[in-house]
Amino acid sequence: MAGVFTKSATRAAPVLDCQTKIAGGGDEGAAILVNSGNANAFTGMNGLDSVAAITSAVAGALELPQARVFTSSTGVIGEPLPHDRITEKIADLADTLSPDGLESAAKAIMTTDTFAKGAGAEVQVGNDTVRIAGIAKGSGMIAPDMATMLVYIFTDASVEGAFLQSTLSELTEKTFNCITVDSDTSTSDTLLVAATGASGVDCNGQDAFVQALHSVMLNLAHQVVRDGEGATKFVEICITGAKDNADAKRAGLAIANSPLVKTAIAGEDPNWGRVVMAVGKSGAKADRDLLSIWFGDVLVADKGWVAPGYREGDGAAHMKGQEIVIKVDLGIAAGKATVWTCDLTHEYISINADYRS
Amino acid sequence: MAGVFTKSATRAAPVLDCQTKIAGGGDEGAAILVNSGNANAFTGMNGLDSVAAITSAVAGALELPQARVFTSSTGVIGEPLPHDRITEKIADLADTLSPDGLESAAKAIMTTDTFAKGAGAEVQVGNDTVRIAGIAKGSGMIAPDMATMLVYIFTDASVEGAFLQSTLSELTEKTFNCITVDSDTSTSDTLLVAATGASGVDCNGQDAFVQALHSVMLNLAHQVVRDGEGATKFVEICITGAKDNADAKRAGLAIANSPLVKTAIAGEDPNWGRVVMAVGKSGAKADRDLLSIWFGDVLVADKGWVAPGYREGDGAAHMKGQEIVIKVDLGIAAGKATVWTCDLTHEYISINADYRS
Repeated sequence: MAGVFTKSATRAAPVLDCQTKIAGGGDEGAAILVNSGNANAFTGMNGLDSVAAITSAVAGALELPQARVFTSSTGVIGEPLPHDRITEKIADLADTLSPDGLESAAKAIMTTDTFAKGAGAEVQVGNDTVRIAGIAKGSGMIAPDMATMLVYIFTDASVEGAFLQSTLSELTEKTFNCITVDSDTSTSDTLLVAATGASGVDCNGQDAFVQALHSVMLNLAHQVVRDGEGATKFVEICITGAKDNADAKRAGLAIANSPLVKTAIAGEDPNWGRVVMAVGKSGAKADRDLLSIWFGDVLVADKGWVAPGYREGDGAAHMKGQEIVIKVDLGIAAGKATVWTCDLTHEYISINADYRS
Repeated sequence: MAGVFTKSATRAAPVLDCQTKIAGGGDEGAAILVNSGNANAFTGMNGLDSVAAITSAVAGALELPQARVFTSSTGVIGEPLPHDRITEKIADLADTLSPDGLESAAKAIMTTDTFAKGAGAEVQVGNDTVRIAGIAKGSGMIAPDMATMLVYIFTDASVEGAFLQSTLSELTEKTFNCITVDSDTSTSDTLLVAATGASGVDCNGQDAFVQALHSVMLNLAHQVVRDGEGATKFVEICITGAKDNADAKRAGLAIANSPLVKTAIAGEDPNWGRVVMAVGKSGAKADRDLLSIWFGDVLVADKGWVAPGYREGDGAAHMKGQEIVIKVDLGIAAGKATVWTCDLTHEYISINADYRS
């Protein structure tokens, strides 16, 4: 079992509980219980009491140590979690546990999501096959700077906890930490990976396993962006030529989080001036006269000036698609990064101006 | 003459020109020419050529050194500025110069602004009176981390350049650098203060002058927020109890820039959970169990938990007003800051999804 979690200073009680348990290690099996509708966040000490009541009930029903029961809660922040409504259903839930239940679980944890998110991979390790399957939920309050929303990945690989944790942390930086819907970071972001070892295949240090896990994580991360609240476009932002990779990510996320860039994309407007603006404010090292921008394959701006031969119609044609690619070369050094986001539409406002009422 | 300017790495040609001239000093009179519709930003070396053509024409018409002619341009980024259309009108403009022209200028520099912005103050220094008048434009791409949008302030006070510049920089931190509409920082932000000395009143080191200048700057900054693109609410965010003042501002701006907080305000939803989320992601030092939140005078959350006796109806009543006050006490130390923003509405999307087309 390995996990990464929100770095929010106001993280929710289930997150604090998971972090303690992951740090404690152990390999006596594990259970995960997730509820949606109430985030059990900013619920004071009562929040941890609720987690204790739920994990105790699950541990009893499944004959597991309580330290191996993990929970997540997603939904409204600040309302007490009526945990009795969960604990009284534990026996029913235990009775209906099924190896085929993953899709139902993916549906059950949705909040403003419009589709259930899942991904899987099979890995060849020598002559053996290892499987990985994961589910995720997340649509708004998405700007993970750590882990992300709720993600659960399962594999029958046999791996040591330390290898799984270090691999997970590294891959998170390239997947979930490279997406943003609205620049807002959840109090509840949780990503857990459980390796059962059921295949009997030793995957410690196996590149093929790492690559397969990467593909599952990236697939789930992209699904979260595609289902961003109100999204009509999937946007990939590729930064090259930055001072270093961290600077490239800084510039990429500044573009991805800019309301003016995101509304321009919603309006199918090839407004590259706003891309320039976002790079300028990002804090990344930039020099106007080295900066070039592409929309798709169309060179729009070339070294600080509108590209000779650029026709607005070419940029506009790319913006009409559903898959938008914005490439920016900073011309400084070799740093690079790719991040993903969606557009900012009327529907995002509609969803969030009355989420609670 | 003193000025503060955008810190954007992709700042516009007129900004670069102004910065050079302000650094050069001088007191032989001054002229300011502003155009709207085209920002002359990301226009390569041609951008500075345009500035030179315009400032040369103005200097000739007004018999001023070119080094004392300042320009600003606001509008679309990345389009070449057709500066001939400006230079051929300089003679007409010079003929119609008038001491009463400030209101017309405030109107002429508007882009997506819905009203012209001006403010004034009179200061008593001993038995003498000094006057200050300022105008501003700005509505979107507003998250000044330095100066802001376009602001011009005039006074007949007699002050030395060094005092005026240091006072301006200090006051900017408490006024224009504490407002945000959409977290996007313009390439063209410029704030110029001209002191003519016509009153003959020595204002160097005069607190009354500094306070009056502060009031004019804060008034203009608030007008920019009130006219934020699509805004229906004026929002004041007061942070107390932070580790230090910088941390307080960090938490305040995280709340002010959060799309989820801003859409909740648009929906008149007292969604204090989103305030908790924004504090958590801000990077400011925070402890859930020390955090308290008020909407107006209503205590909503008290030390990490919904306040005893809080009724949703009380929070909702405050949110129905047009002037929203969110107070957050972090309970850590004595740092404090106040920042101002507006809500995020459908109208912001409408304005920005087709600004250019």
